[in-house]
Amino acid sequence: MVNGEKYVSEEARQAVEEAIAQVGYVRNSAARNLVKQESRAIGLIIHEPHSLLFEDPNIGSILLGANEVLSKADYQLVSLIIDSDRDSRRVADYLRGGLVDGAVIISARASDPIAAAVAEIGLPAAFVGHPDGTPDLPYAAINNEEAARNITGRLLGTGRQRVGMIASALDRDSGQDRLAGFRAAMGGKFDPALVVEYPLYTYAAGLEGMQELLRREPAIDGVFAASDAVAAGAMTALQEAGRRVPEDVGIVGFDDSSWALRCRPQLSTVRQPADLLGSTAAELVLAQLNGLPGTPRVLDTTIMWRGSA
Amino acid sequence: MVNGEKYVSEEARQAVEEAIAQVGYVRNSAARNLVKQESRAIGLIIHEPHSLLFEDPNIGSILLGANEVLSKADYQLVSLIIDSDRDSRRVADYLRGGLVDGAVIISARASDPIAAAVAEIGLPAAFVGHPDGTPDLPYAAINNEEAARNITGRLLGTGRQRVGMIASALDRDSGQDRLAGFRAAMGGKFDPALVVEYPLYTYAAGLEGMQELLRREPAIDGVFAASDAVAAGAMTALQEAGRRVPEDVGIVGFDDSSWALRCRPQLSTVRQPADLLGSTAAELVLAQLNGLPGTPRVLDTTIMWRGSA
Repeated sequence: MVNGEKYVSEEARQAVEEAIAQVGYVRNSAARNLVKQESRAIGLIIHEPHSLLFEDPNIGSILLGANEVLSKADYQLVSLIIDSDRDSRRVADYLRGGLVDGAVIISARASDPIAAAVAEIGLPAAFVGHPDGTPDLPYAAINNEEAARNITGRLLGTGRQRVGMIASALDRDSGQDRLAGFRAAMGGKFDPALVVEYPLYTYAAGLEGMQELLRREPAIDGVFAASDAVAAGAMTALQEAGRRVPEDVGIVGFDDSSWALRCRPQLSTVRQPADLLGSTAAELVLAQLNGLPGTPRVLDTTIMWRGSA
Repeated sequence: MVNGEKYVSEEARQAVEEAIAQVGYVRNSAARNLVKQESRAIGLIIHEPHSLLFEDPNIGSILLGANEVLSKADYQLVSLIIDSDRDSRRVADYLRGGLVDGAVIISARASDPIAAAVAEIGLPAAFVGHPDGTPDLPYAAINNEEAARNITGRLLGTGRQRVGMIASALDRDSGQDRLAGFRAAMGGKFDPALVVEYPLYTYAAGLEGMQELLRREPAIDGVFAASDAVAAGAMTALQEAGRRVPEDVGIVGFDDSSWALRCRPQLSTVRQPADLLGSTAAELVLAQLNGLPGTPRVLDTTIMWRGSA
């Protein structure tokens, strides 16, 4: 075991076992787990409002990927959702209570108190994504900036002249990096008036954001939506405004989640390997539990070019 | 405390505390929790394939409702997802390990091994929904059969002649009861050839189901979809087949989830109070932890009549 100091000393373990032997038994097998100091559970910590959690199919894919790896290693995945500061404090207490042996942290924000708590406890952990300003933990991530730059470039390559972005989640690395990639691809054509910002990657953000962009620039002919759910909302707004996709307005998204194939026309987007992000982060946690270093990994993305641009 | 026998005896508690005193301390606060035999955590057990979990916004609402109640009572909600028999066994082991003080069980099937394990352990627990053949645990539920009968009746009231159903999840009480309600409302007009069945409440089931119904009966003019996600898929299939909604085909759903307002036209559906189901089930668990009986509750549904029928 790598973190020897996290475990009860041999002396303490013997004393507890003797005490239990004296009085016969302790029914609850948590006692056995305590002696071994193992819960055989790994926490999946998700920073999302509960009410919007289920709009982001990526989280389901990350969860699936993490569970496949942990299930094979006979660990139980337990999901902990953080939606408020109060939740943050309670989850930190839960982690300190020894009820999990490690943690995968997704959708973290830069000022994430849980990441700090995990570092303080010394819990084996890994991020999905790589927020700036968080403790130095291993991570599985994609290069959001490069991917955003590439798909914006591809959209510009279809001859669009007035291209905007519906940006989201600028308090996260993914949101910031996708905006930075858009800006880089636009170069001298970048117009801040054609960027609208919303707090979350949602269908509603896309619907409202597209309506706002149409008000600001009726001649808009291209849109990069920060996620597929956002793009789906934007396509509904375009249809309601009588604009044809892709003839009048070309639109591209990000994720290649289940939203992309539900759109009509189907969405041109960036495929990110959400299940692999989850399984890789889980492997990084298991490596640490086995005394190995967790080496950060950046996974590849690809452009899926379909009918929307 | 109601289930005294689940707790460590006073003698054992003292012996363990003395042993800890002898050796100075045990770093991990799981030791403290063990002495009290409390984890301050409640499991939310979800029976869904991970890959489809995030297509059902009801689960998010149930989770939100349960978390609000548990958070106020200073309990941590931990979600455990069951997608396979292997998961079932591991979750049962996890529950036996004393890592949660109670459980809310959703989307259970009639032959649910977890419900049996919970009953065997004597863990305070409640169902969302009320599957037949499961142990006698308290539950928070709606009357799916009555609600399905009512909305099918309303659809028939618009003058439809050839009405079918896209049924789903017939291995659950909700799926069975919605089909039974449809059949009851149809009476002598019920035609088994106009019922298609799919294993899960998904958009894909609606898409394929509607295509199949159109092949079987080109004159079909009304459809009851077993959930809003199913109805959304069916509406896409109707649009692609050149059928107008509601002029050519009237369609109704079930749930009043976020899918309903995204449909164009917006979906006529049954509103079920998913958040209240979650909070009520959580209250039933807390009641048992406080030594009170958990009395089953059936909550009301209402019809939301919009543009799709």
